[in-house]
Amino acid sequence: MSESKTDILIVGAGPAGLFLAAQLAKINAFHASRTRPGQPAKRIDYRIVDKAEHKVLVGHADGFQCRTVEVFQSLGIAHRVVHEGCEVAEVVFYNPDPEENGGKGGLKETQRVVDTAPGTSFFRHYLLGQARVEQFLIDLVREEDGVHVEQLTEPTSFDMAQDTSATEYPITVTLRHITPKLTNGLEDPKSGLYRSNLFAPANEEPKTSMNGVDASEETVRARYMVGCDGARSWVRKQIGLELKGDSANTYWGVVDAIPITDLPTIRLKNVIHSADSGSILTVPRERGYVRFYVQLGRLEPGQRVNRAEVTIEKIIEKAQKIVEPYKLECADVEWYTCYEIGQRLCDTFEKQERVFIAGDACHTHSPKAGQGMNTSMMDTYNLGWKLASVIHGTANPSVLSTYNPERHAVANDLIEFDRKIAGLFSGKPATREEAGVSLDEFHALWKKMGKWTTGTAIEYSDSSIVAKTKQQTYGIRPELASGILIGSHFENHPAICCGTAQDIQLQHQLISDGRWRIILFPGDIRQSDVQERLQRLGDKLDQVVRRYTPAGEDIDSVIQVLSVFATPRLDVEKQKLPSILKPQKSPYGVTAWDTVFADDKSHHTGDSNTYVGYGIDASADVGCVVLVRPDQYVAGVWADADIERFRDLLDHVLVKW
Amino acid sequence: MSESKTDILIVGAGPAGLFLAAQLAKINAFHASRTRPGQPAKRIDYRIVDKAEHKVLVGHADGFQCRTVEVFQSLGIAHRVVHEGCEVAEVVFYNPDPEENGGKGGLKETQRVVDTAPGTSFFRHYLLGQARVEQFLIDLVREEDGVHVEQLTEPTSFDMAQDTSATEYPITVTLRHITPKLTNGLEDPKSGLYRSNLFAPANEEPKTSMNGVDASEETVRARYMVGCDGARSWVRKQIGLELKGDSANTYWGVVDAIPITDLPTIRLKNVIHSADSGSILTVPRERGYVRFYVQLGRLEPGQRVNRAEVTIEKIIEKAQKIVEPYKLECADVEWYTCYEIGQRLCDTFEKQERVFIAGDACHTHSPKAGQGMNTSMMDTYNLGWKLASVIHGTANPSVLSTYNPERHAVANDLIEFDRKIAGLFSGKPATREEAGVSLDEFHALWKKMGKWTTGTAIEYSDSSIVAKTKQQTYGIRPELASGILIGSHFENHPAICCGTAQDIQLQHQLISDGRWRIILFPGDIRQSDVQERLQRLGDKLDQVVRRYTPAGEDIDSVIQVLSVFATPRLDVEKQKLPSILKPQKSPYGVTAWDTVFADDKSHHTGDSNTYVGYGIDASADVGCVVLVRPDQYVAGVWADADIERFRDLLDHVLVKW
Repeated sequence: MSESKTDILIVGAGPAGLFLAAQLAKINAFHASRTRPGQPAKRIDYRIVDKAEHKVLVGHADGFQCRTVEVFQSLGIAHRVVHEGCEVAEVVFYNPDPEENGGKGGLKETQRVVDTAPGTSFFRHYLLGQARVEQFLIDLVREEDGVHVEQLTEPTSFDMAQDTSATEYPITVTLRHITPKLTNGLEDPKSGLYRSNLFAPANEEPKTSMNGVDASEETVRARYMVGCDGARSWVRKQIGLELKGDSANTYWGVVDAIPITDLPTIRLKNVIHSADSGSILTVPRERGYVRFYVQLGRLEPGQRVNRAEVTIEKIIEKAQKIVEPYKLECADVEWYTCYEIGQRLCDTFEKQERVFIAGDACHTHSPKAGQGMNTSMMDTYNLGWKLASVIHGTANPSVLSTYNPERHAVANDLIEFDRKIAGLFSGKPATREEAGVSLDEFHALWKKMGKWTTGTAIEYSDSSIVAKTKQQTYGIRPELASGILIGSHFENHPAICCGTAQDIQLQHQLISDGRWRIILFPGDIRQSDVQERLQRLGDKLDQVVRRYTPAGEDIDSVIQVLSVFATPRLDVEKQKLPSILKPQKSPYGVTAWDTVFADDKSHHTGDSNTYVGYGIDASADVGCVVLVRPDQYVAGVWADADIERFRDLLDHVLVKW
Repeated sequence: MSESKTDILIVGAGPAGLFLAAQLAKINAFHASRTRPGQPAKRIDYRIVDKAEHKVLVGHADGFQCRTVEVFQSLGIAHRVVHEGCEVAEVVFYNPDPEENGGKGGLKETQRVVDTAPGTSFFRHYLLGQARVEQFLIDLVREEDGVHVEQLTEPTSFDMAQDTSATEYPITVTLRHITPKLTNGLEDPKSGLYRSNLFAPANEEPKTSMNGVDASEETVRARYMVGCDGARSWVRKQIGLELKGDSANTYWGVVDAIPITDLPTIRLKNVIHSADSGSILTVPRERGYVRFYVQLGRLEPGQRVNRAEVTIEKIIEKAQKIVEPYKLECADVEWYTCYEIGQRLCDTFEKQERVFIAGDACHTHSPKAGQGMNTSMMDTYNLGWKLASVIHGTANPSVLSTYNPERHAVANDLIEFDRKIAGLFSGKPATREEAGVSLDEFHALWKKMGKWTTGTAIEYSDSSIVAKTKQQTYGIRPELASGILIGSHFENHPAICCGTAQDIQLQHQLISDGRWRIILFPGDIRQSDVQERLQRLGDKLDQVVRRYTPAGEDIDSVIQVLSVFATPRLDVEKQKLPSILKPQKSPYGVTAWDTVFADDKSHHTGDSNTYVGYGIDASADVGCVVLVRPDQYVAGVWADADIERFRDLLDHVLVKW
């Protein structure tokens, strides 16, 4: 039996697993870009295996939160989402007309709101099938790092050394390479029922979906293993964890179809509560499709759905009843499934900081708020850079201990939120005669949930990589940048790039290449006191950055310094800037031209108003320094004079050289 | 010998040939989208052959005019250009410092201007290597139409029937399939010298660059043939044409390299005139590269360059001399070549409206104004829809007679312009002591050439498909839309899509799917007289459109009607619109949701100001109707009451059903 080694074994090539591979590919591509072609580059070795014959082809998740698109931008693939995806611009609420038939009249449009609140993000909310998302990630991994997903490859045994520090590769996994032979018995490619949580309970022993013929096996030894293998995770089982939670006793059908309908708002998002027939949620999709979430029925405790009763015909029939008096036909059904609303969560997302689980393997919830795929990818976004920097030896292994608390808290909050929203969706609307979900109640929660549905709600708490509240300990000065929220993502505002004269988006400069970033807002360099401050700062900054940079590597290889001046661009260029602001890059020694920015007027898009956007006073007698993690979350905000206090935080995380 | 038939044989798979294939693929994809999967769709059959082993890998053309990006948008691939390309934002002029050394001092920045004048286009000016452009087109043709470029396939004989109307496939070509065996003798993959016009004169008998081993032959019979086979075109020779023109007796080197330099504006476009060492033009490129055009020397009439003297080392040496006192090293040379400035043009671009030539096959000029690749692709953009509509039987063959006058005039104007600009680039700068090119003269021409360098200068003259000046004959009313220039491209302004609530770009709705478009600006539909006018217009419009639409095809399959109301979006939706504005689409009968727009406020981007943008008076007592060709050029502007006068123009072009 062949034996090999790898740094990270990723089990499962759905969105979470592929995203992790994409993050690692991007980090590898950065180091390759600093190496002469043909020379060996610093590289994380990883493998991504999946027992299925191929990736998802239709259906499944389809919602792209703004925040996810921002992160895709940092990987260089957001343009594909924007190009192929369907932007959903407004949400329309329909309720029974209270003036008719004792409050049970025909549907009436009761409210219409913008889907993505203006100012939330540079991007909007897009709908695009999971099949395409997976393809974008697969393409990235192949193009940037030459790695392919190993399909038809299934882990069959797992072992981890008792003392994981005693050996370099403490994890041993047997992989079985299987020949395809579909045995799930469901021949209809449009049906997603065989993956439905109604018919395949999350904690059931996962069955091998393929029976191997001529199966061969190999042994892989790994430093780390990440289980991205879904709600019925094999990895989760190996580390003795289980999903805990319950279901809300209502079950829903999902249909992706081309609708023929007279509902005038069919290309918007529609939330429709009928008087007696249940609720429906529709979202417009790419290529003229629409996704329908159709409330099918309720279950008594312990009751199971009869599979024979869940057919595409019956789901459509139900949908037609709910949208009456509007007409609805489904001209082309691309995919359908059904699910039971339920929220389940693992107690922890890791074991010994060597085996991690992410995505559906550690949390599941109802799909309607578009959280599943997005949260899964953000799980591995949180984990990827941590693993890479520990393997590269630039971060202490202790940084891995932040994964579980950060992502468990997100999953927990999300499940709370999901429970509320699912209840409101499934509840009957209140009428004059009957109690129920009031319109106002629903709208109020909908508004509040805007930050969740855009993915911008996440705010990590104090830890070794977030200095949020401990002002004394770390000397942070959050009040210097009122538009920057520590623990949350670094939001976007435009600026002008001094080297290229382009009007750029500052957030887009934070490429997910594994590097930390220090973003300086020194004020107006035309003022002599700012110039003096900057010269002093340059030396200190150089020391701080050099402290965490391995000898022989580029000064910007662990921490990149970006600076934004409250000064017209041409006046910045005339100044002599500290070299740490414009470092030289291997392998050719080119001076960086994309690290210095100005809050200035653009030829095409007006004033950039960068300082105003971040709530920074350009005329303050102290500059402002923002430390941003490799995943774009803000670690802290300091006064530039206190730059050395970065060490109070970073010394615990980064390796000193 | 095998024999086959095809509608169009495209010879040459450079930008012109690939663009033609892409245009045809997009037209085929449109008809496929109106057909049930698995059913036969209306389709143009075409083949694209190229004798080279593979497409260009590095170097060659690299400039993307705004107008070209607009057209790429209409094919659905602009996002790839914007993502990978380098936006060039400003142009900086350097001249000898007149205050130093008698006007021959070191270089001094004398002016700095925006590269793309604000308001020119939704897009900017991008630099990206031809290799990527070709890849985008290849991907499109494969993904949208399943067609592959046939490399290593060379035409060897040509015959055309005397009476081309007597037979369906009047063209007979022998194709030779060759096995690769590089014989050009230049082993350096970075060198483009073997394609240079200095060492391979345009009119020389083209040599087969591959010597066939096991070559097989086939006979192809075609309705049409298009020669996109470059300056040494085989097709051009078959139809007895030649490039005529002369050279300006100066020769230049071209280098794509990663520069190490202290020139502060290296990531902008630089136009550098040295006192005595000649001129240089630099443009920033993707991936950190910069392209240098380096003036090497002058030739006496009849003098030839010694090939041994044109080496990469000597080109760089010369560049270093020109940019003094700035330092310049080329860390990584990706590609280089040299060329002689010359303008050459064919007398005509076609024979019997059956064989056409496009791109370098019919016009060549100097590369510095970024015209070559762009103009070549716009040649076949002009031709593609004409060929397709004749083959589909929706247009009269006479429409093909417009290709030569339209594109010959463009090439002619371009060559005039290029001659001027090349002279200014190659001339010595004037100093106090010596006559020469004055700074003011140069800057004045540079400004004037903005419309050329953005590709927005083209204005087709009166013809069967442009009603520009003959107001009496066609009843046009250009004064109704002062922001729309008949004969020029339909410019972009934003609007709000009523069906999706998205803020859209109106020009982006003009997909290059082979369809004509009627764009209505009826005014504010809330006014009763506008409502009445619209109801009357609806019937007439239906008749006009139906007149040119084959029986059994969708009403929008030849001409698509778009409408823009000067009315808030929600008020448009409440109105009953004539069905021609929201037609039903095969194969499922979905009602179009993307054809009706409002000049309204966007949630995210403010007022769209569509009517103001197009110079249309929303309160006029007559609406305005714009007829746009399938290539986005404006055929004419009419009052809506005169809609039937479209027929005076279209009856000559489109087939009546």
